[in-house]
Amino acid sequence: MMNTQPTSVSEAAKSRVSVRKFTDRTLTREEILNVLDVAGRAPSAFNVQPWRVFVVQDPEVKGKLMEAAYGQPQVGAAAAVLVVTSDMEDFMANVAETVHPGMADRLDAVVANVSGTFSGMSVAERAAWGRNQTNIMLGYLLLALKEAGLGSSPMLGFVPDQVRSLLGLADHVEIPALVAIGEPAEEGFPQFRHSTDRWVTFV
Amino acid sequence: MMNTQPTSVSEAAKSRVSVRKFTDRTLTREEILNVLDVAGRAPSAFNVQPWRVFVVQDPEVKGKLMEAAYGQPQVGAAAAVLVVTSDMEDFMANVAETVHPGMADRLDAVVANVSGTFSGMSVAERAAWGRNQTNIMLGYLLLALKEAGLGSSPMLGFVPDQVRSLLGLADHVEIPALVAIGEPAEEGFPQFRHSTDRWVTFV
Repeated sequence: MMNTQPTSVSEAAKSRVSVRKFTDRTLTREEILNVLDVAGRAPSAFNVQPWRVFVVQDPEVKGKLMEAAYGQPQVGAAAAVLVVTSDMEDFMANVAETVHPGMADRLDAVVANVSGTFSGMSVAERAAWGRNQTNIMLGYLLLALKEAGLGSSPMLGFVPDQVRSLLGLADHVEIPALVAIGEPAEEGFPQFRHSTDRWVTFV
Repeated sequence: MMNTQPTSVSEAAKSRVSVRKFTDRTLTREEILNVLDVAGRAPSAFNVQPWRVFVVQDPEVKGKLMEAAYGQPQVGAAAAVLVVTSDMEDFMANVAETVHPGMADRLDAVVANVSGTFSGMSVAERAAWGRNQTNIMLGYLLLALKEAGLGSSPMLGFVPDQVRSLLGLADHVEIPALVAIGEPAEEGFPQFRHSTDRWVTFV
């Protein structure tokens, strides 16, 4: 089922649907990292890159994750579950690593400026901000999975505190989505989307 | 500068950078709609598709948009500025149109269930929820623009109320980003991203 040639952006976008049934093929770390490397190229404001992803393949942890997701079977059936999190406090403690080398000659000033911008927000406000940025990466991720020949179902139906507890995550860590992934064993429902005339206005 | 063959997802993700200088080539509506058609294939929870996009090409409106964006020159220089908005109240008034035809035989029950889920939230909570979903679409959009050979710079630096006032948008409408687009007239800065070992953990 692996793709042998690249899938174009528009082909991937137009053909990707949620898949909830998977074969029992396991995924290698390399295969998963290749996909995440593509996803992590997503832009974020100030290049913050707040996304932190946990790849759950351990059967016992996956089972507990399924419990935290109201028992939804795709969590247990997936070769891996990507717990897509956003951690702005980790960013705040490491601002310098996000500064583009092109600005290395004024690193301290850039760090002070960026830190100042975010320290004016509460932890909750920063969390909400980072969650939005992480969803841009989620868009990239879903297309990258399609290109790699993998099925995926992004999910919001879970109890965040249970997932945090399971993975030992701090309260400030946001979880924009769980994404069950694996080799597809079903076609999934066809897409049903608004035509552009419903949501595009020319000014 | 137009692409003559499809760009793969990974090629697009790895080569896309922000572009703030554009040639004076104008964009046709068809060209823009083709890109937005790809972007609008993004998934959203409950298939809500809260995104509503305003394509600003009128020079006078673009000029006022630039004022609302602290005078950032890429807004004025762009062939078009995509004002990416999210309107959950428009969704709430039209839930039935988002229900998959495969569930047509129980349309009323599905509409009641979905409406019930969201009516338990405040307008502000729904707005925050929809904004996140719209950022998934933004990820798709940036890759689709790259595939189409167009440069883009997504922006958060603007005064939302000024943009709302300019376009006649209600207060509940969220604006996750302005995206300046056009034929690129610069290469832009190279990407600078964390390697996956900084943000990926295997469990």
